[in-house]
Amino acid sequence: MGRWEPDSEDRFRAAAIELFREIGFEHTTVAAIAQRAGLTARTFFRYFADKREVLFNGSERLQQTMVDALVQAPAAASPIDAIAAALAKAGDFFDDERRPMARVRSSVIAANPDLYERELIKMATLSAALAQALRARGVGESDASLVAEAGIAVFRVAFMQWVGESERRGYVEIVNESLARLRMLTAP
Amino acid sequence: MGRWEPDSEDRFRAAAIELFREIGFEHTTVAAIAQRAGLTARTFFRYFADKREVLFNGSERLQQTMVDALVQAPAAASPIDAIAAALAKAGDFFDDERRPMARVRSSVIAANPDLYERELIKMATLSAALAQALRARGVGESDASLVAEAGIAVFRVAFMQWVGESERRGYVEIVNESLARLRMLTAP
Repeated sequence: MGRWEPDSEDRFRAAAIELFREIGFEHTTVAAIAQRAGLTARTFFRYFADKREVLFNGSERLQQTMVDALVQAPAAASPIDAIAAALAKAGDFFDDERRPMARVRSSVIAANPDLYERELIKMATLSAALAQALRARGVGESDASLVAEAGIAVFRVAFMQWVGESERRGYVEIVNESLARLRMLTAP
Repeated sequence: MGRWEPDSEDRFRAAAIELFREIGFEHTTVAAIAQRAGLTARTFFRYFADKREVLFNGSERLQQTMVDALVQAPAAASPIDAIAAALAKAGDFFDDERRPMARVRSSVIAANPDLYERELIKMATLSAALAQALRARGVGESDASLVAEAGIAVFRVAFMQWVGESERRGYVEIVNESLARLRMLTAP
């Protein structure tokens, strides 16, 4: 216990999510997370600054993955098709194995205003990063913001569906369908 | 001074915005705002809970106005056309006379993380209210969220353009153009 183990981060995350679900985010302490994980609090702090970080420390990797997908989209791809590639690539993070944890995470965030604010900031940051990557592809200033924000709208709606209790479809299927739906609903 | 005057709220707001621009949000006190307005701090607190409220207390009226416009859109209007009506109606708040103040407000918010968070929450709340009003018109759960979020995307991008230093076009022209642009960029 307490030694570095390759799966410690995942064990902390699973333990924290369990406790958030059982006794709530507010009542969960780092000591309790560590005990549940069979590790030490000291080790916890090697991975996470605090218990909030358990919910958010994947954000940067998600953002980088989406930006990379956008950058790598074919040069001939339209702005919305480049965004579509980024949205689909996020599916690497949202497989069925992670869905139960994502469900708990979503309900914890929805119930806690501070966490909800942080989630909004995360989304705004992601939107700005995607817009920047579109501009680097030659898309105009405002067009890039519009398409990136529309992409984030699709992402948020699709994600909320994906974590829905009775939802069985995978994230990629849902996000592709949401994007198609938005395009149809806004068709000139 | 200190008595109720019909324009006190506007005088406080103008004084506060001047001070925010001159010495920054952080360094502006309610006492200084009152002094600049030629009114008392006690009167200030009849209108605003604190100096942050000077920047945000119009939010509810804006939201109600936009929701009302959406509700009153013709029954035959498509979801995106109903949102377009709400976006255009917001122009009642954003006339050329208010543009200089809106410019300062935007730069104050952009420079202050707490205020920026609050602005993000305001936008998320507005989006949820518009989605709810779409559902009341019979639009499906996810479709309503998608169209409302797309509308907020257009609103944010248009507003940022409207407060741009060299921008001369009016808000309604910009928002209509932004919406048309989004529809074109996402056309299937």
